[in-house]
Amino acid sequence: MSLTIWSNAKFTDPVTEMLIAGTRGHTLVFSGHASASVLVPGQADPALASADIAFGQPDPAQCLASGKLRWAEVTTAGYTRYDTPAFREGFRARGSAFSNVSQVFADPCAQHLLAQMLAFGRRLLPSYQDQLTTRGWEYTRRRYDSRLLTGQTVLLLGFGAIGRRLADLLAPFGMKISAVRRQTRSEQNVRIISEESVSSALAEADHVVNILPDNDSTRQYVNARRLSCCKPGARFYNVGRGTTVDEPALLEALRSGRIAEAYLDVFETEPLPADSPFWTAPNCYLTPHSGGGRHDQDEAIVAHFLGNLDAFIHGKPMVDRIV
Amino acid sequence: MSLTIWSNAKFTDPVTEMLIAGTRGHTLVFSGHASASVLVPGQADPALASADIAFGQPDPAQCLASGKLRWAEVTTAGYTRYDTPAFREGFRARGSAFSNVSQVFADPCAQHLLAQMLAFGRRLLPSYQDQLTTRGWEYTRRRYDSRLLTGQTVLLLGFGAIGRRLADLLAPFGMKISAVRRQTRSEQNVRIISEESVSSALAEADHVVNILPDNDSTRQYVNARRLSCCKPGARFYNVGRGTTVDEPALLEALRSGRIAEAYLDVFETEPLPADSPFWTAPNCYLTPHSGGGRHDQDEAIVAHFLGNLDAFIHGKPMVDRIV
Repeated sequence: MSLTIWSNAKFTDPVTEMLIAGTRGHTLVFSGHASASVLVPGQADPALASADIAFGQPDPAQCLASGKLRWAEVTTAGYTRYDTPAFREGFRARGSAFSNVSQVFADPCAQHLLAQMLAFGRRLLPSYQDQLTTRGWEYTRRRYDSRLLTGQTVLLLGFGAIGRRLADLLAPFGMKISAVRRQTRSEQNVRIISEESVSSALAEADHVVNILPDNDSTRQYVNARRLSCCKPGARFYNVGRGTTVDEPALLEALRSGRIAEAYLDVFETEPLPADSPFWTAPNCYLTPHSGGGRHDQDEAIVAHFLGNLDAFIHGKPMVDRIV
Repeated sequence: MSLTIWSNAKFTDPVTEMLIAGTRGHTLVFSGHASASVLVPGQADPALASADIAFGQPDPAQCLASGKLRWAEVTTAGYTRYDTPAFREGFRARGSAFSNVSQVFADPCAQHLLAQMLAFGRRLLPSYQDQLTTRGWEYTRRRYDSRLLTGQTVLLLGFGAIGRRLADLLAPFGMKISAVRRQTRSEQNVRIISEESVSSALAEADHVVNILPDNDSTRQYVNARRLSCCKPGARFYNVGRGTTVDEPALLEALRSGRIAEAYLDVFETEPLPADSPFWTAPNCYLTPHSGGGRHDQDEAIVAHFLGNLDAFIHGKPMVDRIV
């Protein structure tokens, strides 16, 4: 079976070679509008119309319009532009598959979250600020401000591949882990709760971890009302999407101390503007949407696609299949 | 059995109350020379001569001279001043017990090490420097500089309570963990190696973690020769004791890039002098000997002592017993 594979993903030469070698026997068509960033949506491209498979960030309307396309894999974990009833139903009706590459980003995002939780516990960032500024040896203060994660309570907002991996990484700490998500099927070591129980779960959580994707039901989910339910002094983390947070309400919660510290990787507007109040908000620590980063990201994305290509050809289950 | 318990440990009032309540029925004698720091050696005290039990930082020579003392517990993990053949043999000969409180500090030290390893992997400290200085949104750079710990190789120099806990915390990462120590009995998930194999183990390790205590055989253990065995670009961590490192040799290894990054919590001279080159050495990240810190340290130390007191009275095995 020789397939036509269209791609607008832009990789370094060695990774492109890896993609070419792995798709030998098929026809690989590169779009003229390749994008090096996984966060920039692709443009419509006439070449997509003749493809069996799309890999990258294909235009959703064009995917739907194509009668030939049988599978599309996006090179991101997020897939907001494809997450519409029309897209899902259109693909489902004609038996086409749609997948993302969640597994590529789940491990780095989970490690990023644990890094932030432990940086809080060990006061790494205040100590680094001492190093960069006063050269103060704050022995007593840093020691007695340190907190063990052991036995603390964490609430995950959203529970997919990242949450599953984070729960595994947290297992040796003996934390009490709860997660809110739509499907209420149970999970090992994690208490899945429904939306009605969120207020009381927020009141108990030492750590509130936001991994919600962006869609119509999650936008501004973390609002003033939910923040006011948080345990005073709770820590808040966001490696999901900035749009799921009411940012002025979060800033107010930081200023009032209701949220004692925030570790934020994503924002409503990215790059974060230089005049954003988040740069200097009290006890607020930023990373530049690097939560999913890994030096071998592109190799891992191509390996993910090639694994799924093999599954697609042989009718086996695909990884991270959404439709 | 009513015992006389001497203590020169200085705690806050609620923790002192906890000690008093837990030793009711015995005679608790507080030294006039109490010390609030676990790192400051205690002084000789006449009251120690009539004690059955010493808790704190008793003078080692006075412990040996006392015919009555049957058990001493120090309020630290380190016990260099007691770690002499004369002390061990003196205590052993008369059937006295000696213990430290390793278990109190094992979990925070292990979490501190994992925090440092993950801070490296997720570039948390460079991102925080961006936040404090340029407000640069270094999206591409931080993402592609990020490293997963998954599958990497770690070598522990020394393997006791901290190493055991760290190995447990690292289990979900699937790292290859080796440790060098004198006793070569095997450990779950950890390859124990002997001194003869250290050079080749250093050559393979992505992470070299120093948790050696200070004693005659460990002083200046991490010297220029061993640093030259390290894999180029290795990361070095020290939460053990500063005396186990040849500091000028480590600075040279950082400058040459042989050691790509160092995360240091302990130094030969503490507090670290303001003119120490470590404050500004390239890719060197400091914490102020806060590795063992926990906000509930004093409660945990007293709980450890009271648990051992119960074991001592009832002839059961004591935790962290050294002699």
